[in-house]
Amino acid sequence: MIKVGIIGATGYAGNEIVRLLLGHKDVKIVWFGSRSYIDQKYADVYRNMFQLVDDVCMDDNMEELANQVDVIFTATPQGLCASLVNDDILNKVKIIDLSADFRLKDVNIYEKWYKIEHKAPQYIDEAVYGLCEINRDKITKDTRIVANPGCYTTTSILTLYPMVKEGLIDPDTIIIDAKSGTSGAGRGAKVANLFCEVNESMKAYGVGTHRHTPEIEEQLGYACGRDDLKLIFTPHLVPMNRGILVTAYANLKKDVTDDDVKAVYDKYYKDEYFVRVLDKGVCPETRWVEGSNFVDIGYKVEPRTHRLIMMGALDNLVKGAAGQAVQNMNLLFGLPENEGLQLAPMFP
Amino acid sequence: MIKVGIIGATGYAGNEIVRLLLGHKDVKIVWFGSRSYIDQKYADVYRNMFQLVDDVCMDDNMEELANQVDVIFTATPQGLCASLVNDDILNKVKIIDLSADFRLKDVNIYEKWYKIEHKAPQYIDEAVYGLCEINRDKITKDTRIVANPGCYTTTSILTLYPMVKEGLIDPDTIIIDAKSGTSGAGRGAKVANLFCEVNESMKAYGVGTHRHTPEIEEQLGYACGRDDLKLIFTPHLVPMNRGILVTAYANLKKDVTDDDVKAVYDKYYKDEYFVRVLDKGVCPETRWVEGSNFVDIGYKVEPRTHRLIMMGALDNLVKGAAGQAVQNMNLLFGLPENEGLQLAPMFP
Amino acid sequence: MIKVGIIGATGYAGNEIVRLLLGHKDVKIVWFGSRSYIDQKYADVYRNMFQLVDDVCMDDNMEELANQVDVIFTATPQGLCASLVNDDILNKVKIIDLSADFRLKDVNIYEKWYKIEHKAPQYIDEAVYGLCEINRDKITKDTRIVANPGCYTTTSILTLYPMVKEGLIDPDTIIIDAKSGTSGAGRGAKVANLFCEVNESMKAYGVGTHRHTPEIEEQLGYACGRDDLKLIFTPHLVPMNRGILVTAYANLKKDVTDDDVKAVYDKYYKDEYFVRVLDKGVCPETRWVEGSNFVDIGYKVEPRTHRLIMMGALDNLVKGAAGQAVQNMNLLFGLPENEGLQLAPMFP
Amino acid sequence: MIKVGIIGATGYAGNEIVRLLLGHKDVKIVWFGSRSYIDQKYADVYRNMFQLVDDVCMDDNMEELANQVDVIFTATPQGLCASLVNDDILNKVKIIDLSADFRLKDVNIYEKWYKIEHKAPQYIDEAVYGLCEINRDKITKDTRIVANPGCYTTTSILTLYPMVKEGLIDPDTIIIDAKSGTSGAGRGAKVANLFCEVNESMKAYGVGTHRHTPEIEEQLGYACGRDDLKLIFTPHLVPMNRGILVTAYANLKKDVTDDDVKAVYDKYYKDEYFVRVLDKGVCPETRWVEGSNFVDIGYKVEPRTHRLIMMGALDNLVKGAAGQAVQNMNLLFGLPENEGLQLAPMFP
Repeated sequence: MIKVGIIGATGYAGNEIVRLLLGHKDVKIVWFGSRSYIDQKYADVYRNMFQLVDDVCMDDNMEELANQVDVIFTATPQGLCASLVNDDILNKVKIIDLSADFRLKDVNIYEKWYKIEHKAPQYIDEAVYGLCEINRDKITKDTRIVANPGCYTTTSILTLYPMVKEGLIDPDTIIIDAKSGTSGAGRGAKVANLFCEVNESMKAYGVGTHRHTPEIEEQLGYACGRDDLKLIFTPHLVPMNRGILVTAYANLKKDVTDDDVKAVYDKYYKDEYFVRVLDKGVCPETRWVEGSNFVDIGYKVEPRTHRLIMMGALDNLVKGAAGQAVQNMNLLFGLPENEGLQLAPMFP
Repeated sequence: MIKVGIIGATGYAGNEIVRLLLGHKDVKIVWFGSRSYIDQKYADVYRNMFQLVDDVCMDDNMEELANQVDVIFTATPQGLCASLVNDDILNKVKIIDLSADFRLKDVNIYEKWYKIEHKAPQYIDEAVYGLCEINRDKITKDTRIVANPGCYTTTSILTLYPMVKEGLIDPDTIIIDAKSGTSGAGRGAKVANLFCEVNESMKAYGVGTHRHTPEIEEQLGYACGRDDLKLIFTPHLVPMNRGILVTAYANLKKDVTDDDVKAVYDKYYKDEYFVRVLDKGVCPETRWVEGSNFVDIGYKVEPRTHRLIMMGALDNLVKGAAGQAVQNMNLLFGLPENEGLQLAPMFP
Repeated sequence: MIKVGIIGATGYAGNEIVRLLLGHKDVKIVWFGSRSYIDQKYADVYRNMFQLVDDVCMDDNMEELANQVDVIFTATPQGLCASLVNDDILNKVKIIDLSADFRLKDVNIYEKWYKIEHKAPQYIDEAVYGLCEINRDKITKDTRIVANPGCYTTTSILTLYPMVKEGLIDPDTIIIDAKSGTSGAGRGAKVANLFCEVNESMKAYGVGTHRHTPEIEEQLGYACGRDDLKLIFTPHLVPMNRGILVTAYANLKKDVTDDDVKAVYDKYYKDEYFVRVLDKGVCPETRWVEGSNFVDIGYKVEPRTHRLIMMGALDNLVKGAAGQAVQNMNLLFGLPENEGLQLAPMFP
Repeated sequence: MIKVGIIGATGYAGNEIVRLLLGHKDVKIVWFGSRSYIDQKYADVYRNMFQLVDDVCMDDNMEELANQVDVIFTATPQGLCASLVNDDILNKVKIIDLSADFRLKDVNIYEKWYKIEHKAPQYIDEAVYGLCEINRDKITKDTRIVANPGCYTTTSILTLYPMVKEGLIDPDTIIIDAKSGTSGAGRGAKVANLFCEVNESMKAYGVGTHRHTPEIEEQLGYACGRDDLKLIFTPHLVPMNRGILVTAYANLKKDVTDDDVKAVYDKYYKDEYFVRVLDKGVCPETRWVEGSNFVDIGYKVEPRTHRLIMMGALDNLVKGAAGQAVQNMNLLFGLPENEGLQLAPMFP
């Protein structure tokens, strides 16, 4: 039985980790960390867990926690995980960090985009970027830190990676137009996220400045051997709870058909349990992945302008956060990668 | 391995049966019946099942089906199940009928409220009303037909049953004000159920005439030994996918406190896995049960008017349809009652 | 040109007053009061008003304001209006108070239910309860304070008033089950009102304790000559922006048909511009009144239980707040009652 | 008093024309045409109009209608308007066609993209493309046919036009990612538009094939003197009733700042009542234009990739359909362009 601690268990992603791990046969959660709700019953904060979780919320004392558990999930604001880890802790437990602290390999880019000082740059190199479908080989029982990718980045990278890697598209022309449900904005009490502000509206935000931009650039840069890749990433807020939809555009470098594109996607994802390459002509829709760890990918060659349109959809709280974290945990502990994650999408 | 056939697999309840059974370790679905989509791939109708279900939709030939499976779920319009069953079939397979065909013991009431002739009244007596928490003892391996209760009735009966049974309230004063998400209206293409008609609106419907009324009356009548019980049941449509909330009112017959009321609920439900009696002062909310088979129950004594307010919430597609059907199946085959149904509610 | 000041112009009701008055040909708003956004441009707080309102938010100095305007709308938390008014002010301007400060004639009931001390009880008697359809005669150019009824109370009272007044129903058996969109909860930054908390869920709240209860009791008590009327009022939160739906139940005191009930409603409302008594068998739906000052009323005799079901729907921000306030203003200044309020409902 | 007839009055756009014209002081609607609801009371089809419209739905006999009215709005499926008009009719009344029949100047492109034969190509040349902000001079009392632009095209063209016209961007690199509320899909009873199918989901559709593409290309082609302009237009469906948001991308041809971009927008739109050019750094949101005829425009220079991001938002049923049609009517009859259209946006 793997003993799990969660720091930040009362955020939406934290609650989703709890939901998934309650259905994981090899795991027991022993620490529900939450600064905001310390000493309160977890099931009073998230009543979906009434009679399923009896625990009380704990603090985020990672030192103590490291003595009690095998793996820690940190679902916390940027900077917190980096401020807590040290060698002593890392020698005792594995860390799966759902924040951005260890995602970017270039600490300067981190500090520039996140506008905070990185408190533990010495661990950046060893941290593995936990996009399992791409970095599976590096996520092993020897890994100490997994930087779990976020929702926008997971969708964007998985949608674009094979096309960039195989040189079908010109990476300098990539435009990513992303749309997200509102759970990605977190559970903080802000006027902008009130029901009446979000419902019946949509907007772009963080235009030209969103922090997920350099992460996508870095990872796609690896795919095409470029360290100066620049692309446009524009996130939008949509009135729904869960779901990310990415519509990406790029100039084609080759004359290809939809079938050719599918063949390339299949080359990379045919054996991936969680990536579903859709048939030609079918567009991904977030309703078909809700509640599951699937990513659905669609594509359309636009011959009139010689561009490729690529689309990806996932549930931001599952494959875009908690599900991917559990997938990483499975890899870290040598379990079947989809253990506890074989949930069929829930519709409607 | 229990072999399952579903007639009406392409309705919302049918799809939910599929979702739940895919996570049930003792079951294999071998027949996806659907008149509307015959010969089409099931996963083309419900793309959430892409790469999870490879089957093609079949007809509703129950004779043939009976030779292939151990149990048939009928998630079909009223009247269809009754028109298909016969002795030969019932001797081969068990039927779990999600329609109303075998719910009402009085065939005249059925024909009056549903305005159709009952095609198989000879099986009404042996059919068990499949509200497991109340009729568990009658749902055994000898049972041939289970009449699976609907969403409104399950919520209403479970919320009111202990209070009626124990004589805390005057059954002649019961008023049930019920609110439902829109998946209860089914997948038929009707203007009234279009997104723009339902979204940002609410309404009562079937006021004084809704067909679930006599079913609630009949079952609560059993609880208090009355065959002439009459109550008010008013359903409302609310702009959300899933969820039933029942707010029920009745005159108190005894001087009780909230604690007393809880004690009565606990007497009936303390050991029930799927019924969660909430703490005093906590109101049920549908978000806390979504995707799960739980029913949450709250209550409030209103001393100024000497009435009791009772509230129940569940997911209409799970405990209100497919989940309850699987729960019944587990009982029929001697499995643990919550096998395949231990899903934590999904929030948000 | 009537000069208007608004205290609390940056709440949802305040913004709705602005929307309506921009379309009122006899009015000019000269003071946009807001404690939270003082000195900020109003159109930066509510961008719907970009290029329509150039003003900057002011404080709530009612003394100064009284010198500049003819009428003040106070759309503020309970207690504020009572703490600001005095004789000097009331001799200069009219006050239309959208809070509860002057709605209840019994100050003890106010202090008990609102749990605050009333700062200006001396004005309670002269304040007119501004439900125009019932108190029209008292809302004149001599009136100094109008207590503008709230959303739940307006719907409940208009729906029940003729039935109580005419003795069709037993007032001691009234049960009001009310459902509200979320704008009624205001623009405060609370976790409970975040999009993801409200969306795809519903709940009862304030069960047995909601502050609108005594207001409804007081007004309906006048209708039947009772000062001890007690009823049940249960509000619910529904995932939509605007709209109140009231479903009310009571025992019939007379043998009546739906036609008889309609005749009574027509007696009271036939000439009312803003009250639409629906045809027999038609239920009100909030979508049909959105954005307008209409109240739609439906009804159904339930002969099996000898009860009457009454239903009312309105837009909580219009007839339930700002629209009614403008209607009151029109009466105070001798304008046609529907001036500026002849907006057709917007659908979808 | 201008006498108006509407063919297709029972679609969403038709109902919105009715809503707007009820508030227009110079207009009387005398013909509510609807094939589907002929002889039914209009207010029974759209109950928002109860007690506001007493008329019964008529057929679409344009000959007869032409004798009774001054102007006909056709809010009908593609092809119908073209099949009804003739010289006799055009000599009697003006036609404002909300369908695509007369929008495209090249009949071959029409027939290729719409896959129907054009029944009245002889009138294409004289029809004026009714985007008032661009073609105002051509919409006069001598105009017989106005081709009223659709929602996607209005948003896209107004957002891109000044940038293309002034040569700030390379028109061959334009990518338009558009998101729409669901009312744009119409009131037809289709499974794909049911509440439960649309709610909590989003998707792209018509990728590479949407019929609005050539219309945008044609109009922007005029702006830059190109008849072979090709661009990408990708529409998405979002779970909300009203609202279009366009996010458009193009390569910059000049080194400009956000201030420079604003200056160009202001050059074109400063005096336009209905176009609101937002301040630097502010993104348009559909909630701020709901119910109104405004278009809000935002922009962001992305210097890292030397591209320009342009954003436009409007209410698809107002400026994207009925409001623009009324704006055109005002021009045709020499009325102030914003007569009846000075509604402030409604929020929330």
